[in-house]
This record gives sequence, structure tokens and C-alpha cells, in this order.
Amino acid sequence: MDRVVIGVDLGGTNTRTALVNREGIVLDKQKEATVAAGGHEQVIAKLIGNINRQRENAGRLGRTVIAVGVGAPGVIHEQTGVVVKSPNFPDWNNLPLRKTLELELGIPVIIENDANAAALGEQWRGAGSGIKSMIFLTLGTGVGGGIILGGRIWHGADGMAGEVGHMTISPDGRPCGCGNTGCLEMYASSRGIVMTFGEIWSQQDAAAPLPTGITSEQVYQAARSGEPIAARAMQDMGRSLGIGIANLINIFNPEMVVIGGGVRDAWDLFIDATRDEIRRRAFEYPAERTKILPSVLGDDAGMVGAAAVALQKIEA
Amino acid sequence: MDRVVIGVDLGGTNTRTALVNREGIVLDKQKEATVAAGGHEQVIAKLIGNINRQRENAGRLGRTVIAVGVGAPGVIHEQTGVVVKSPNFPDWNNLPLRKTLELELGIPVIIENDANAAALGEQWRGAGSGIKSMIFLTLGTGVGGGIILGGRIWHGADGMAGEVGHMTISPDGRPCGCGNTGCLEMYASSRGIVMTFGEIWSQQDAAAPLPTGITSEQVYQAARSGEPIAARAMQDMGRSLGIGIANLINIFNPEMVVIGGGVRDAWDLFIDATRDEIRRRAFEYPAERTKILPSVLGDDAGMVGAAAVALQKIEA
Repeated sequence: MDRVVIGVDLGGTNTRTALVNREGIVLDKQKEATVAAGGHEQVIAKLIGNINRQRENAGRLGRTVIAVGVGAPGVIHEQTGVVVKSPNFPDWNNLPLRKTLELELGIPVIIENDANAAALGEQWRGAGSGIKSMIFLTLGTGVGGGIILGGRIWHGADGMAGEVGHMTISPDGRPCGCGNTGCLEMYASSRGIVMTFGEIWSQQDAAAPLPTGITSEQVYQAARSGEPIAARAMQDMGRSLGIGIANLINIFNPEMVVIGGGVRDAWDLFIDATRDEIRRRAFEYPAERTKILPSVLGDDAGMVGAAAVALQKIEA
Repeated sequence: MDRVVIGVDLGGTNTRTALVNREGIVLDKQKEATVAAGGHEQVIAKLIGNINRQRENAGRLGRTVIAVGVGAPGVIHEQTGVVVKSPNFPDWNNLPLRKTLELELGIPVIIENDANAAALGEQWRGAGSGIKSMIFLTLGTGVGGGIILGGRIWHGADGMAGEVGHMTISPDGRPCGCGNTGCLEMYASSRGIVMTFGEIWSQQDAAAPLPTGITSEQVYQAARSGEPIAARAMQDMGRSLGIGIANLINIFNPEMVVIGGGVRDAWDLFIDATRDEIRRRAFEYPAERTKILPSVLGDDAGMVGAAAVALQKIEA
């Protein structure tokens, strides 16, 4: 019987589960809201339910599930699959997620950080196919990162590497939730875009009240319809992203930088400013040779990458 | 007969050549001025002379030299040992240094970038002994870097990785020779220290003329004797370095950061400010676990690391 794996992207908002074959093709997928407020026991119970439904699915397709990969937010201990710390699931500190799932499922389970999983997904079946050194940036509410060097994730000494969103790009800039000021995340995320829009609005016309409850999608839409403040906000965001990417190019000399997350949808509104800034700041040769591309897999990247991790483990 | 290697640190100012045994002990060393102005043929002729003198030395000590490692400034093509581009030796572009030396010497020669060689030297026999992930920063006229991950140098896709001195730490800051503005190198180098001293001096007392021809060593000395402008300049430098190191900690989660180069001599004048800034900016756990240490080997790091590269190659 054909052997397949299950890849799970366990996000703070949604849990995505996919049946993936050895070529990285998604045979089936499902999405369900994650209810973190109910505590880890409830999240895990639902997760096991989802995985078992996909196993039944696999059986109907004449396939056997041989392993499960889970991309989870936070710091993961590589060898043991323990979630050491997770900002989205406050009661998950030191949770032995791998052991818990393996006991229940009876097959090997591998846990990986969610941004790393998405990076591996893009490298396996997305923009970075065939690429050995790649930096993946996910621009959402925050800015996450996954660093692939020599074809493998660089986890760092404690599994905490890849926090590229917390690179300082403006030393006296906006205060960040991490305690620093001027983190890339405060400028190149959806939240950052809304803040920048608000700042320019206030500078331009202090008399007109700032519309409340503005979303990043509304800023994209306004920029596309030619609204100048929104357009400027997107270019500012692009320049901030360019400072961060120029730093990464000078540090890593990678083959590729892939940009995913919700902000990727506004690609055309920021990428020219980003490329200009990279040209201005990074060394010429590595800057010109580094391909800067939007993510291809989108929301599927995490599941596909989690499946890749599971397959790698089984085959090792 | 006991087999040994020769490690060479081919700098823009001095060429250092050492006889090194397999334990990384320097059996003999010599230093000579590099005369780059005479063109690459003259530099290579002197280099061969130095190496042959050390081979004779080895013979007298009852040892055989089995390989030579050379740390050279610039971009080195890893497989071929060609110096692709070297800022200190303008006529060296695309010079086949390895082939040239091997033809002359008749034993294997390995070429490595000089900052990478120094990083490997510190990891082998210096501050980073036993450490697998280490960022080496050399603070001299400029700021160079060597990145060791999983016990090996990360060279990047084209041998151009590790340019940590050209990380932007102040987007609208001082113009740098690389074309960027606000590079770490413009603040955390000996040149940067002199510039900062001059800036504070002018702000403090515009009437008093700035002493001309000030050196970084004079700034250290003044700071040590309690002169407040010099002391502030050193603290400013320490903070800038802290921004850069905090970024590297968030990106790499390394075990250790080692600081070498001439500015290391002023360690006590900047390190508290550096540590404060790291604490303020980097994630708490990786920041606390990363050891920040001064280089132990000093000027020997490059030769010892070049010897390590030669030994690794021979043993592989």
C-alpha cells in the first residue's frame, strides 16, 4: 500500500491538516478553527480528531499513514518534541507534544516550529524548489522567519534561531512586544502597515480624524485605488523590509529570500521599494544574485513543510 | 617524522606565518610587512619565501610540512582557491592563488577568507574551544565577521557570507565605503570610534578646535584616564556593537560571540554598554545563554585558523 504522511499546521487561529504523499502532493486537506482558550487538552483532543479523520481518509484512498509532522508556534526542543514556550498558547510551556501524540496515534510524530515548517514547505514544493540556502519571511500580524542553510533548517543552539522579525532596523523606533524598540516586525507586518498609515495620516492632515478600526487589507485596497497616504504607507513598509533583507543578504549570502504571510497579497504595492532599498544597502553581487520571490504555497506551506519534516525523519 | 602544517595570515599590513602541529600548538612564527603596492607577483614571491623558511625550520625540528593554509582578505572561491575579489589587493581579482602556490610548493594549499580563518582559529584553540555555533567579530579599521554553524564556516552561496560589519544599525546614519549608510562598521570600528569622539567633541564645545590626527588608541587612553568625551565615545561604540550583536543573537541563537581585532584592547571601556544593549534588545533566553568573550589568540587567530583549514582538508 502506498505510504503517505500527515502534515499539520497548528496555528493560533486555524489548524490545517493535510494528507501528503512522498512527492509532496497534497491529497486532501482540512481547516478548522483553533480554540486556544479552552486549554491545551482541548486543542490536542481536536488535533487528534483531525489527524484520525485524515488517517481514515488515507485508508479509503488505499494509503497508509506512516508518520505525522506538526508545525507549532513557539520554541520547540528538537530532540524531544517538547513545546518549551509558545506565545500563542500560554498554557503550553514545557508540553511534551510529541510524546502525547505518539502515545495516542501509535506512529512517529515530529514537531517543528511553524515558521521553520513553512520555510521547508516552500523549499520542497514551492518557490525554493531545488534551493539549498533560503531565508523565508512570513509577514502577518508579526514577522516570522525560517533559515535554510545547506538544505536544512538552522535551529540555533536552543531551537530559537530565525527571529528575523526582531532585528532592529530603527534603534529608537516603535516599541515592540518583545521589549526592543524598532524591530522589523513593527514596520513590515500588517500591524506595522496600519501604524504607518496612521502616522502619515496624522502628519498630513492633523484636522481630519483618523478613521478607526482600519485594517491592513483596507490600506492595500486604498493604495491600489491611488489613495496617496496608503500608497506611501506601503512604500515605507517596503523600504523597512528592504533594510531587513539587505542585512540578511550581507550576513548569509543566500540563494533566495521567500516572502509569505498575509502581507504577501500586497506584493505589487511594496516590492519595488524593497528592491530599491536592497540595491542601496547590500553588497552588489550577492544582492543581484539573491532571488526575492513571493511564497507559492500560501497557507499550505506549513502543512507541506510539516509533512516534509515527518518524511525526512522516517527516511533518516 | 611528525607531520605539521603551515598557517598564513596574509593581511593588508602584515603577513604572519606559523608552523602549527596537529594539536594547534604554534611551534614557530614570523611576521613581515606586506607590500601590496608592489603588485601580486611580489607579494606571492615573498609569501613563498616565508613558507619555505618555515619548511626549513620544520626540517630542523624533525617535522614534515604536509599542507599550507592561507587566510586572505576578500572573496575566495571555496573549491578552486581563487581570490575572486580583494579590497586590499586591487590587482588580485580572479587570482588563482591556490594553484600558483601549489605549483611552487608541491604540497596541498587551502585558501580561506581571513575573517573566517580567524574565526576557526578561535574556535579551535581560543575562546570558542569546543563550541559548535559561534560568531566571530573582528573590530579593526573595519568590522569583519566569521560565522561558524554546526562546527563549520557558513560561506554562503558565493563565499560572501559573514559581512556582519555591513548590517544597517542606523538607517540614516554615517555613509559607509560600501555604499550603504549606517553600517555597524561605521560605529564599532577604530575609525568609528574616532568619528564618534569628534562628533561629541564638536557638540560639547564648538569653540575648542578638535585635535587633529587623533587615533583610536588615544581615545582609549583618554577614556581610561577619565576624560568624559572619550569615555562617552567608547560607550556609544559599545551600544552600537550591542545592537549588532543583539540582531545576531535573535537571528542565529549562537552559543558564543567572540570579539577580536585591535578594538578588543579597549574591552573594559565598551563591554558593559554592549551587554546592556543586548539585554535591552535581544530575546532574554538566547541573550543570557550566549557567551560574549574577547578573542584569546589575538593576532595569532588567523594563522592558527588557516592551519586548521589545511588540516581539515588533509584529513577529509
